[in-house]
Amino acid sequence: MAATLYLLPNRIAETEPEAVLPAQTLSVLRNCRRFLAENARSARRFLKAAGHPGPIDTLEIIEIGHVPDAGQFDAWLAPMTKVGASDTAVVSESGCPAVADPGAGIVRRASLLGIPVKPLVGPCSMLLTLMASGMNGQRFRFLGYLPIEREERDAAIRSIEAESRRLGETELFIETPYRNTKMLKALAESLCPDTLITAATDVTGSGESIVTKTALEWKKALPELPKLPTVFAVMAQMKTGGRRHR
Amino acid sequence: MAATLYLLPNRIAETEPEAVLPAQTLSVLRNCRRFLAENARSARRFLKAAGHPGPIDTLEIIEIGHVPDAGQFDAWLAPMTKVGASDTAVVSESGCPAVADPGAGIVRRASLLGIPVKPLVGPCSMLLTLMASGMNGQRFRFLGYLPIEREERDAAIRSIEAESRRLGETELFIETPYRNTKMLKALAESLCPDTLITAATDVTGSGESIVTKTALEWKKALPELPKLPTVFAVMAQMKTGGRRHR
Repeated sequence: MAATLYLLPNRIAETEPEAVLPAQTLSVLRNCRRFLAENARSARRFLKAAGHPGPIDTLEIIEIGHVPDAGQFDAWLAPMTKVGASDTAVVSESGCPAVADPGAGIVRRASLLGIPVKPLVGPCSMLLTLMASGMNGQRFRFLGYLPIEREERDAAIRSIEAESRRLGETELFIETPYRNTKMLKALAESLCPDTLITAATDVTGSGESIVTKTALEWKKALPELPKLPTVFAVMAQMKTGGRRHR
Repeated sequence: MAATLYLLPNRIAETEPEAVLPAQTLSVLRNCRRFLAENARSARRFLKAAGHPGPIDTLEIIEIGHVPDAGQFDAWLAPMTKVGASDTAVVSESGCPAVADPGAGIVRRASLLGIPVKPLVGPCSMLLTLMASGMNGQRFRFLGYLPIEREERDAAIRSIEAESRRLGETELFIETPYRNTKMLKALAESLCPDTLITAATDVTGSGESIVTKTALEWKKALPELPKLPTVFAVMAQMKTGGRRHR
């Protein structure tokens, strides 16, 4: 029987891994000896902090990078289909592999090869932001990064708002930490005054801040956001007569 | 200082709560004595299974139902803003409150009243399905339930596929368990032969099955799906020249 490909979430802030990872996830982590890691160094640090019995330098840690090379998938997965094959865990630098992070292509290839895939529970800043936003959790969309160039970005922001209003949908996206404040300013200035904006910074961390205000409220007193991982959420007010979310 | 409104995930299958809930979540659960529960009976059962020191019948458990009455939000939250206020946890029957489950309106109202909101880590079948699907995790959409009526449902399925192809986006939705097989059949028959479909049943449970195949493959040998909670995911193949996800 083939080994299992585990999808192993990493913590998303400088917390004790035990605080945010359940027993099943920690058990797989501590028993696994082969890892496909977005970044080998941060994976070693994470495994050690999460109590892997190690020794860490005897583990097989293959660095797959932020944009894994599809030409390598078969080589990375081949040892999993042999007799005496080892379970392997995909681990990204932060959060859940294959969600706003590498891993999806490897999972797809593993499925095609008949390798069982097992996703494990762990923190996801997008999901935690959605929960705490007070916005619609019955219908939402995650967009990754918005365009960087100003005109393109502002057009994207307006189109996101129109889509949110049309469908009553929550729109979620992320930004590079050093551009957080610039993004919040662009949102506050481009969106309708009554559109809701959530800025969720350092989720699960000691500096966790998840704040929801209208575009007008943000604009009146725009804060400097810390240069820490941040998820933004946007929800337009629906026109009267539209469906309302609970 | 106001008490905190915790968003407390429930297990999503008949597992030990410790297997899928991390220490921080369990600690809040065991220390909290006031709950806003989608269903009071299942909340009591969950709290007991998760090791709440109880006695369970001394806890304050307010049943908010599947569609909470917005007229009650202030009454439910009022005790949280008084001196000696009690922390309160929103808990749904399964998974994360406010995500495909009640809670969002209460969170929004709490924010407006200045009550701190703290989302906790736990299992989410939508997120675990996305991770294990091998589909695009950089851009995805959750649609809740599709329409029930056949023509409307098939139109929705076709529009979902078009949107997935246009944006390279993963489309996720859920179905009432007794209609799982009917939904899979409709997807297999309505979608392009090479469109990918994931059916994820009993995620984290002993009968967990997360299978991704093309519409054509599903159509050739359509299984009877168990009448257990199931998440569906769809991703169309992009036209040549389109952006490819990793």
